[in-house]
Amino acid sequence: MQIILGIDPGLSMTGWSIIQAQTRDQILPLNYGCIKTYPAQTLIQRLHSINIQLQEIINTYHPQNAAIEELFFAKQAKTVAAVGQARGAIVLTIALNKIPLFEYNPRTVKISLTSNGSADKSQMQKMVKMLLNLKEIPQPDDAADALAIAMCHASSVGNVG
Amino acid sequence: MQIILGIDPGLSMTGWSIIQAQTRDQILPLNYGCIKTYPAQTLIQRLHSINIQLQEIINTYHPQNAAIEELFFAKQAKTVAAVGQARGAIVLTIALNKIPLFEYNPRTVKISLTSNGSADKSQMQKMVKMLLNLKEIPQPDDAADALAIAMCHASSVGNVG
Repeated sequence: MQIILGIDPGLSMTGWSIIQAQTRDQILPLNYGCIKTYPAQTLIQRLHSINIQLQEIINTYHPQNAAIEELFFAKQAKTVAAVGQARGAIVLTIALNKIPLFEYNPRTVKISLTSNGSADKSQMQKMVKMLLNLKEIPQPDDAADALAIAMCHASSVGNVG
Repeated sequence: MQIILGIDPGLSMTGWSIIQAQTRDQILPLNYGCIKTYPAQTLIQRLHSINIQLQEIINTYHPQNAAIEELFFAKQAKTVAAVGQARGAIVLTIALNKIPLFEYNPRTVKISLTSNGSADKSQMQKMVKMLLNLKEIPQPDDAADALAIAMCHASSVGNVG
């Protein structure tokens, strides 16, 4: 049994998930949600707020592993800068808690859940809902993405072990 | 009298400086150098290493303020991603130490030191050497940049106060 933290990083909104993986096919979503920050805050306030909220999640669930998407370069440099800085603060928070971190590229996450590296957002969300036996698609999208990343890690560990 | 930490962020090399500002025209460089990380390290190791080295500098000099350059978007997205993540870890480290952080754009730093917003690297380095009464231009370049940023902040505070 393993508790996994999944993260979809962003400066305004970071999706997070905590899943409990029994086996590859037995996955329980313990909780998920999103960490928000606001443009009226300074950058230092926003990164500190992400750190504080993420630390609370870590303190509550004591994840043994964390999984995060690789940074995607095809976006505008300004977007990459915002996501990159949030991601740096998140990765440091995970490092300070000595939690092993695994990075997956978006295509790997898609293949892991749908067997299709080009699956669209809607297909991914439906698979997350189905595989976790949820009544509805998790909201917001970033939380569903964070669940998908944690499930990809559970599946990857299942394949190796 | 104020102790100021200057930072020129990067993933492979982060320039840092500690200056003591008496008045706008009386600035003592206490120390400067660079924090290095290596491609053979994982991202989590690199950001953690930056955090540990920066924390040592903070523990040694107890800076009252920190100054950092605004992130420059005109570079390749891949560069912005690397610098952005390092910068996120650096800003969080400064936030966790409750040190007020000030951001300056490169043009402001250039005007502050040379009165010329388009000054090149060599002109900037000569001004850093001259204003700090150093025998040689500080090496590496990133450390000289970090001195320039801290001096820009000292000058900006001097103007306000």
